[in-house]
Amino acid sequence: MTVKDLASILKQNNNFEILTHNYPDGDCLGCGYGLCLALRQIGKNANVITTDMPKNFSFITDKAEPQDFEPEFIVSTDVADTKLLGKNEDKYKGRIDMCIDHHGSNTIEAQYRYVDSEAAAAGEIIFELIKELGAEITVDIANCLYTALSTDTGCFCYVNTTSRTLRIAADLLDLGCDSAYINKVMFETKTKRRIELERDILDKMIFCADDKCAMIYTTCEMVEGMGDDETEGIASIPRQIEGVKLGITIREKQGGEYKVSARTNGDVDACAFCAQFGGGGHIGAAGCTIKGTLESTIEMLRKAAEKTL
Amino acid sequence: MTVKDLASILKQNNNFEILTHNYPDGDCLGCGYGLCLALRQIGKNANVITTDMPKNFSFITDKAEPQDFEPEFIVSTDVADTKLLGKNEDKYKGRIDMCIDHHGSNTIEAQYRYVDSEAAAAGEIIFELIKELGAEITVDIANCLYTALSTDTGCFCYVNTTSRTLRIAADLLDLGCDSAYINKVMFETKTKRRIELERDILDKMIFCADDKCAMIYTTCEMVEGMGDDETEGIASIPRQIEGVKLGITIREKQGGEYKVSARTNGDVDACAFCAQFGGGGHIGAAGCTIKGTLESTIEMLRKAAEKTL
Repeated sequence: MTVKDLASILKQNNNFEILTHNYPDGDCLGCGYGLCLALRQIGKNANVITTDMPKNFSFITDKAEPQDFEPEFIVSTDVADTKLLGKNEDKYKGRIDMCIDHHGSNTIEAQYRYVDSEAAAAGEIIFELIKELGAEITVDIANCLYTALSTDTGCFCYVNTTSRTLRIAADLLDLGCDSAYINKVMFETKTKRRIELERDILDKMIFCADDKCAMIYTTCEMVEGMGDDETEGIASIPRQIEGVKLGITIREKQGGEYKVSARTNGDVDACAFCAQFGGGGHIGAAGCTIKGTLESTIEMLRKAAEKTL
Repeated sequence: MTVKDLASILKQNNNFEILTHNYPDGDCLGCGYGLCLALRQIGKNANVITTDMPKNFSFITDKAEPQDFEPEFIVSTDVADTKLLGKNEDKYKGRIDMCIDHHGSNTIEAQYRYVDSEAAAAGEIIFELIKELGAEITVDIANCLYTALSTDTGCFCYVNTTSRTLRIAADLLDLGCDSAYINKVMFETKTKRRIELERDILDKMIFCADDKCAMIYTTCEMVEGMGDDETEGIASIPRQIEGVKLGITIREKQGGEYKVSARTNGDVDACAFCAQFGGGGHIGAAGCTIKGTLESTIEMLRKAAEKTL
């Protein structure tokens, strides 16, 4: 299956629903809305289906008001597993026709599957796909795709960034995307509450495995009333510290569940680390969910980190 | 004067000294060492002349051990004014043969001048120049130039980034530059001490003018023993806060002097703000020095901020 094949199948169908993962980020929203706008441009009906939306993506989501139609063809973008559909899992499980993703660990069963784990962002695939559809990359679409690329690469700073990523970003700049606005909103603006949270997190940071592992956590109380957009990116804090090879972020969720993100600089396999707890992801960034108390979760992770490092 | 002209003049000369500005950053070091390596490759003698070197650029500077020769031709890269030569000003003032820069405000007099203020980094010019010289862009040169581009654009996040910047960066990745290492050293590594300093700064942050101004400060005690590279970038902290139009950073220096940096998003004129205290700079970033105590400095700035906003 090539990107050209994907385009040809999309052209033969109509009435699309495009699924994004829960707590959507810039990549899945940029992909979903970019593809939606392109499909509408070539005369199709299309909607993006989201859940648990953060607040700061209105510059993307405002550009595609929902349309009224009977859905016939379901596409997922940047969704590695149907579990990540959140509230929409039951409705769409087993019903996805086309799966487009860049997570090597993708488990979604679909008639048409395209997974390119070399792509830093799923947005790179969608960029090629929109060109193959013969749609024009308008400024609105360019903004969607630039958001996809820049957010999944930490503004082209993470190791997943390739020359292809940079060349597509260059094309998007030439096509008029408002990178200044997007970078300001995505990377340079923090709320007062966020600043307070960072201070709080730094106060409580835990080092282990001879300081080669740094762990931070947030409790429900610490982030009460904060949107996901306000707490995004904290997972990169522990890994930034000199000498730290494994940065772990623990987020308390309702019901005694702890969402764990592991970040490494590639020397340590974050995916293998999280697989011990039933999770997965990439070598440099992975996640898992652990049930228990905050203390027991920290202890489990500390032991695993000391064994790994 | 075109980049081709610069190359042809360099080819006709030999025994080069390449000047960088004081407290050199990634752009001037990347340009200086990149050009030096390229000149040596085509059979010339060349040295880079630096002063006040920070610690974390050894991966660049180690690649060109000083050569012994009688200098004949002086090139400056990324130096906007001879004052910025620091200790080397007296020696080189009026003696620069070729000036290559991207600061529109460049005041250097030289027989051959090439100033391209559209270039996000002077490294963009040096990239073209090395190609015109007919030198191969080796991995070492690619590392120099990637460092130049990425540091002057905040890893391609600042508004100065253009599609040309991104395309050159893509070429450098294809030429084998170690962007992962460079980004890690330049953007992602914070010492434990730095993390503690940030926490300390956030604890003591002051808001005024209806939260439209945020002020942070460091005392000599807070930064004791820390290098400039460890405290770099803290001036961007207050401006990042949502709603803050004027971000002020106060640094205690020896002898009852306080160095003040003002940062704005362009709505407020940082230069006019600092001019009240005998300072200056750009609309978005300016500075001044105030004598007194920490308390009196904060009070003066608070009153000025409340009047301005």
